[in-house]
Amino acid sequence: MTEQNRANTVVSSGMNILHQIQQTFSVPLQYPVLFTRKAFSGDNEILEQVLASPDRERRRVMVYVDSGVDRAFPELTGDIALWFAARADRLDLVCEPEVITGGEGIKNDYRCVMSLVDKLLEYHLCRHSMVVVIGGGAVLDAAGFAVSLVHRGLRLVRMPSTTLAQNDAGIGVKNGMNLHGGKNTVGVFAAPHAVVNDLSLLDGLSDTDWRAGISEAFKVAMIKDAAFFHELCDLAPALGQRDEQAMERLVIRCAELHLHHIATSGDPFELGSARPLDFGHWSAHKLESLSNYRIGHGHAVAIGLAIDTLYAARIGWLPPQTAETVIEALHTCGFDLHVPELQLKLGDGRPAILQGLDEFREHLGGQLTLSLPHPIGQTGEIHEVDETLMTECLNLPQRNTAQSKN
Amino acid sequence: MTEQNRANTVVSSGMNILHQIQQTFSVPLQYPVLFTRKAFSGDNEILEQVLASPDRERRRVMVYVDSGVDRAFPELTGDIALWFAARADRLDLVCEPEVITGGEGIKNDYRCVMSLVDKLLEYHLCRHSMVVVIGGGAVLDAAGFAVSLVHRGLRLVRMPSTTLAQNDAGIGVKNGMNLHGGKNTVGVFAAPHAVVNDLSLLDGLSDTDWRAGISEAFKVAMIKDAAFFHELCDLAPALGQRDEQAMERLVIRCAELHLHHIATSGDPFELGSARPLDFGHWSAHKLESLSNYRIGHGHAVAIGLAIDTLYAARIGWLPPQTAETVIEALHTCGFDLHVPELQLKLGDGRPAILQGLDEFREHLGGQLTLSLPHPIGQTGEIHEVDETLMTECLNLPQRNTAQSKN
Repeated sequence: MTEQNRANTVVSSGMNILHQIQQTFSVPLQYPVLFTRKAFSGDNEILEQVLASPDRERRRVMVYVDSGVDRAFPELTGDIALWFAARADRLDLVCEPEVITGGEGIKNDYRCVMSLVDKLLEYHLCRHSMVVVIGGGAVLDAAGFAVSLVHRGLRLVRMPSTTLAQNDAGIGVKNGMNLHGGKNTVGVFAAPHAVVNDLSLLDGLSDTDWRAGISEAFKVAMIKDAAFFHELCDLAPALGQRDEQAMERLVIRCAELHLHHIATSGDPFELGSARPLDFGHWSAHKLESLSNYRIGHGHAVAIGLAIDTLYAARIGWLPPQTAETVIEALHTCGFDLHVPELQLKLGDGRPAILQGLDEFREHLGGQLTLSLPHPIGQTGEIHEVDETLMTECLNLPQRNTAQSKN
Repeated sequence: MTEQNRANTVVSSGMNILHQIQQTFSVPLQYPVLFTRKAFSGDNEILEQVLASPDRERRRVMVYVDSGVDRAFPELTGDIALWFAARADRLDLVCEPEVITGGEGIKNDYRCVMSLVDKLLEYHLCRHSMVVVIGGGAVLDAAGFAVSLVHRGLRLVRMPSTTLAQNDAGIGVKNGMNLHGGKNTVGVFAAPHAVVNDLSLLDGLSDTDWRAGISEAFKVAMIKDAAFFHELCDLAPALGQRDEQAMERLVIRCAELHLHHIATSGDPFELGSARPLDFGHWSAHKLESLSNYRIGHGHAVAIGLAIDTLYAARIGWLPPQTAETVIEALHTCGFDLHVPELQLKLGDGRPAILQGLDEFREHLGGQLTLSLPHPIGQTGEIHEVDETLMTECLNLPQRNTAQSKN
């Protein structure tokens, strides 16, 4: 019996109930995820169709741009202003596009979020107004959080600017901030009005950021789609050499699998304890904070996948050869898996990263639940971890840098 | 064509779309609303059934108590501690019940909410932990907001302590704060885990607060249930004399109608512009802020109902006799409808309260939509207001104090 069902029956056994009403309803949500290039070139109408009102009421719009995007494309804010000026009959850009500081730091101070809230209120945006946020996962999380609070949710159009945001962090229903040293300890679930993945934004990424989205694709392939996993292994040499076409395929298929999971899991707002899309993430989140965010999310997930893949092989859920294939493919894509943070020990000798298990359980609540591939393309769950075995899995091999030349 | 449907077709007409995914899903939500008396007496098991885990995992619980409740029932926090101590095998009260300042003020400063967030994180509550909030609408809104943010939503058990919260504000899916001078300009939609309406808490209310829930019952009756409206008119003399049984009937039926509306409206999170449950509220919200919250919400709604009822009669949607009946019944219940704030004028001579129309439209977004009874028991909508006519409706009659002795 699920907990929710139990709530249905709570009323049958109490002696002190005077009256009871069981409230039951569903919130229907939908949004398009659109892939394009150069969304703000003069002839691209996609955003106009997303933003404009169907009854031709003039829509109020604010635009936020990640400072990283602004640095990579210094002409972008000007292009945005021109693009809106050409559509001023239908869209009212209430102020110049505003550049906000990118990177995980923005998620660590709630005053940043509150200053965004203040600005949205100052401009009297209403619940039918649109806020466009162009940026990486951290900016989308922090600005999206602010947008979701004002008037209990303005309409958010996310334009993820990184591989990681386009195939994972920017397309779902979460936002958040990091308080008390934990990742995403504060936030809400909220569906965007639309997601526009402008693939031309990926050209502005450093090699590290460009690579960062690859690990989430491996993650979802390993637990959801064996054919995609094998395809990714084949694409690894091209990805290691920054092949755009390979990345486009990776981003689109990974996004599809991610969205399909949210839509069909039956638990889009994660009221239960299982979260298969967090395969490899208990250690990844901890690695990020242990490294003081030197190790970015995508890199950390690559390491987390390698650890949990080795563990899955050790408990007999995967052939050892598959674990080797995974690690080799991640190496070929350019990830260094052997990082010093894996060897940090607490006073009692326990590897510091294993604290990530405790924090992961606390964030989800209830029983510890880790998802692992069982076999490749399908998901199994474990509720207990053999820490001795897991500690052995922390000894990841060094990458042979010749691999990047494959 | 609705806007959501339009999102479905946005992809058909664009020339620049490389790929598109339409994400569609529903979030199923349910919670019980239970009516009891003396929830923390030793033999009352209702809360235990609401809070305890079905798999007998020990549940971590925090309890917040409104300072107004604490003043009216000084023994309550001790009773709560004893009640939990007797159930320590299943429930882990992580700290003493904490008293937080009641009243609208708590909603005006986000630092109050952030200090609640900090505390919930400090005690390492997880998404399966429970937070019980006992209080009036303002405390439920502010504390509920904090609870809904931590880990994207801890489990909230609301125990509304006022008539207004038990039949309206405390049983739905909203929370919020007042920033930038507007009511509920910041907040989220979030379903509670359960609502426990302890009717014995109503004994601690001042006459003003006891009366405050009556207007929301008239509101929902007038637009949803003609039979209940006539019943309320019959109950008015008893309500004017603080009859507990009359209030119990009023609270339960009003709560039922309110919950039924949320469950069946098709728009529980208010993505559209219509909001029939806000009949009478455009002026009520404005009266509260114009009076610097001297006029409480229930009183303000009584006045707002009277204004909009007169307006409905003026435009021919109600017989003039019905408007007189409504005003007489509200007077009999003890509401003074003739308040000086209705006569405040702006520099251009426009009554200050009419600004509430602008603010109401902004909060909901899109077109102005006011719901009015048309006829009693059913809802009609208007999208334009004749301000001259509405200004005349602000001249509400004085209450003959003899009416309270009916």
